[in-house]
Amino acid sequence: VTTVSTVAFADRLAARVAERRSQLVLGLDPDPARLWPASAASAEAEGDAVALHCRALIAAAGSACVAIKPQLACFERLGAVGRAALDAVVEAAHAAGLLVLADGKRGDVPVTARAYAEALTGKPPKGLGADALTANPLLGRDALEPLLETGAGVFLLVRTSNPGAADVQDLRLDDGRALWEALAALADDLGSGRIGAESGLSNVGAVVGATAPEHLARARELMPRTVFLLPGVGAQGGRIEDLAAAWAPGRAAGLVTASRSIARAHERADAPDDPATAAASAAERLRDTAWAASG
Amino acid sequence: VTTVSTVAFADRLAARVAERRSQLVLGLDPDPARLWPASAASAEAEGDAVALHCRALIAAAGSACVAIKPQLACFERLGAVGRAALDAVVEAAHAAGLLVLADGKRGDVPVTARAYAEALTGKPPKGLGADALTANPLLGRDALEPLLETGAGVFLLVRTSNPGAADVQDLRLDDGRALWEALAALADDLGSGRIGAESGLSNVGAVVGATAPEHLARARELMPRTVFLLPGVGAQGGRIEDLAAAWAPGRAAGLVTASRSIARAHERADAPDDPATAAASAAERLRDTAWAASG
Repeated sequence: VTTVSTVAFADRLAARVAERRSQLVLGLDPDPARLWPASAASAEAEGDAVALHCRALIAAAGSACVAIKPQLACFERLGAVGRAALDAVVEAAHAAGLLVLADGKRGDVPVTARAYAEALTGKPPKGLGADALTANPLLGRDALEPLLETGAGVFLLVRTSNPGAADVQDLRLDDGRALWEALAALADDLGSGRIGAESGLSNVGAVVGATAPEHLARARELMPRTVFLLPGVGAQGGRIEDLAAAWAPGRAAGLVTASRSIARAHERADAPDDPATAAASAAERLRDTAWAASG
Repeated sequence: VTTVSTVAFADRLAARVAERRSQLVLGLDPDPARLWPASAASAEAEGDAVALHCRALIAAAGSACVAIKPQLACFERLGAVGRAALDAVVEAAHAAGLLVLADGKRGDVPVTARAYAEALTGKPPKGLGADALTANPLLGRDALEPLLETGAGVFLLVRTSNPGAADVQDLRLDDGRALWEALAALADDLGSGRIGAESGLSNVGAVVGATAPEHLARARELMPRTVFLLPGVGAQGGRIEDLAAAWAPGRAAGLVTASRSIARAHERADAPDDPATAAASAAERLRDTAWAASG
């Protein structure tokens, strides 16, 4: 597996956060039925239209962000053209100085995990060239090692933002912990040998939904050096003001993801009609709110 | 989401198992460095070579099987050409009368799960047109519903075949069950409203590794109408003779997957040198062993 960079992800992230004064991650979940009108009108093919839409979004809101988070499912549903669209989006993000966090929540047995590591973090055009990825820890340590060995940031699902998360992640173990707390301990342990020398943060991150802020302080206690990826702000009801515990170890220790609240900011009654203008101002507002909450 | 067929997957599977007298699933995990020589030599591009290899494997071993199980990671690591190769393989499998079980172990929040449902079970060329898929249950019920609603077979990870599976799946809950037993109960419950009228089997299947046969009887007790997908036979050490409990509800209630032991059968000292001849005879042997064990 050829890794994209030999510098630990956590340190690269922390440097980028400081430089851009942003902890905002631009979620890219393109729905072909809801593209910005200019993108939909100027491309004949759906893959091209999706790529145009995402690149317009990066051009509009990227400067307020530190990374993009493409939702792989949304590209895969386009068929064979989806991957070419995704490749174009990754290239545009890197050109704009943004990190790329591939959101696929993969998890598989070791031999297959190696194939996912190649697919996601290998060099383009065969690899996606992502700097980080999300992963599902249900299959245990040996299934995560091939992802970790790439040097990419690996954000393990610990407590997700959907209502159904409680069904499994909140199951109570015989030692009194919830399952998600055991996953948090696993993330902490896997990251303990992978701490960035500059940042003091771990290459093993954690997905902790912003919709359950009551878990955040406990999550931070269990994972003192882990970068939290915090989905669920905005459309799903999470509030940045409730996330302060995430930033206890430093500015880069919490990443706020937002997609609909940026891409569809223009649908709000009080917003500018132009999608790009509305997206830029929504992203700047989110960036400033997070920066203030993390200080 | 357009589903591939309106007949419940479980019934289609059971009919196909009876007709082909096979419970064997041909795993397709193509490694570009280990393709059959004829495929590697006759294609200039890697994607074409992988597709040729898989189609040759289907031509050789498919008649002894009931389904193929493409490992999505192995196609994704080819880059943009991977999906076109996968589409060609799915088409070849369907033409050969085989069901297609997309092995991607996806699991995501509901809005994203809908995108995966489209990507995997939608009609080609945008959708993959798979008849069934594997899914990770860590995100709970609401994350699984969009997959179930497609009518495709959904095989939930319950107890996987890798050594690290114990790290999380064997965690003990406060009610005395292992986590995997709670996942089994979830699979049973989600499937209870999705029982095929003909087969009596559920559309919600379970992945239960053949490497831990000591769990099988308990798994069958917890999931009396669930089709088990049984990976780990052959290279990983599982033996078909140990899997009888899987077939208690009927011939179609256990599917044995094999990939390396078929695709690389010619590497065994006692096997024919021709990969296709060796693969055909390995597949027939596995099919016959499973049929005998399930009677």
